[in-house]
Amino acid sequence: MEEECLSTVETFIIRPVGYVSNDLTAMTFDPGEEDDPEIRKQRFQAHQAKIRNTISTITVLPEFEDLLSGLDAFSHVVILYWPHLLPQDRRLLKKIHPMGRKDIPLQGIFATRSPARPNPILISTVRLLGIRNRRIRVKGLESLDKSPVIDIKPVISIYDKNENPTFPDWIRMVQAELDSEA
Amino acid sequence: MEEECLSTVETFIIRPVGYVSNDLTAMTFDPGEEDDPEIRKQRFQAHQAKIRNTISTITVLPEFEDLLSGLDAFSHVVILYWPHLLPQDRRLLKKIHPMGRKDIPLQGIFATRSPARPNPILISTVRLLGIRNRRIRVKGLESLDKSPVIDIKPVISIYDKNENPTFPDWIRMVQAELDSEA
Repeated sequence: MEEECLSTVETFIIRPVGYVSNDLTAMTFDPGEEDDPEIRKQRFQAHQAKIRNTISTITVLPEFEDLLSGLDAFSHVVILYWPHLLPQDRRLLKKIHPMGRKDIPLQGIFATRSPARPNPILISTVRLLGIRNRRIRVKGLESLDKSPVIDIKPVISIYDKNENPTFPDWIRMVQAELDSEA
Repeated sequence: MEEECLSTVETFIIRPVGYVSNDLTAMTFDPGEEDDPEIRKQRFQAHQAKIRNTISTITVLPEFEDLLSGLDAFSHVVILYWPHLLPQDRRLLKKIHPMGRKDIPLQGIFATRSPARPNPILISTVRLLGIRNRRIRVKGLESLDKSPVIDIKPVISIYDKNENPTFPDWIRMVQAELDSEA
């Protein structure tokens, strides 16, 4: 039915199940023109600390309230959301400097967590604080205010196991900057 | 542009970036009419063991090959995929018995990892074995053969941290069944 309106490429239609409310309004971490590694590091640390401590409320649409039954017994949930402020043409990018940092070599989009990707469905594992009617409070969600939520899933070890993961050098560098936080 | 063809509900269009190839063809674990807990447990263990040991090849479409650059430096990736054999009407379910097991109380869809959900985008964290041109080999992906892949993301601790997660009783029961495997 929808397909006659679209191209011949196979497509799928998704829709919001709810929306995020929080006080994050800036698109992503923007290192700007700052080339002083120490200042850049401090900004990155401050940005990550703000996200970690941000409490978001996800309000699911009334028709989906019953789907939350039992979720409050989990401590962690995975939120799938749509970066609604991302310009459509950024879905066509192939490689980027992660987090806009020119000191990190260009990486293919699939090797990053950049919101700019062919299907911009972002995932974030967060602490579940509580559920009241159709409002879910979570801590640490990177989503911006008013982002559409696409799905809500409980963290379950058999699906989310990632024991002893290893990373490229650029991730280790970024992680070291965060770990050096005062 | 697409919107004039669709309903007044806000919608997003996504499309496959690749397809899965493996030897998993059965829809999901089906406990059937088996009420003997021991036999049911053995079937569940066998099913999970098969998934854990399954090696899948994801072939990304030619236009997305460059997006894989740098991904091979990670040990684990998150695969987002679409359960293409799921009947559309199963997207309307509100509660289910997890894994079809009547001995587990009904749970809201958002409290489960059921493929039947409003936006059936499934996620699986898997071991990355290797990448050659536009073919990615992974181990432990639950996706069925021929499933469309929606996104590929590296596992990065700052996004995927879930320290000391806690679970409801039904998850502990299922986990105990798996752990008791010979």
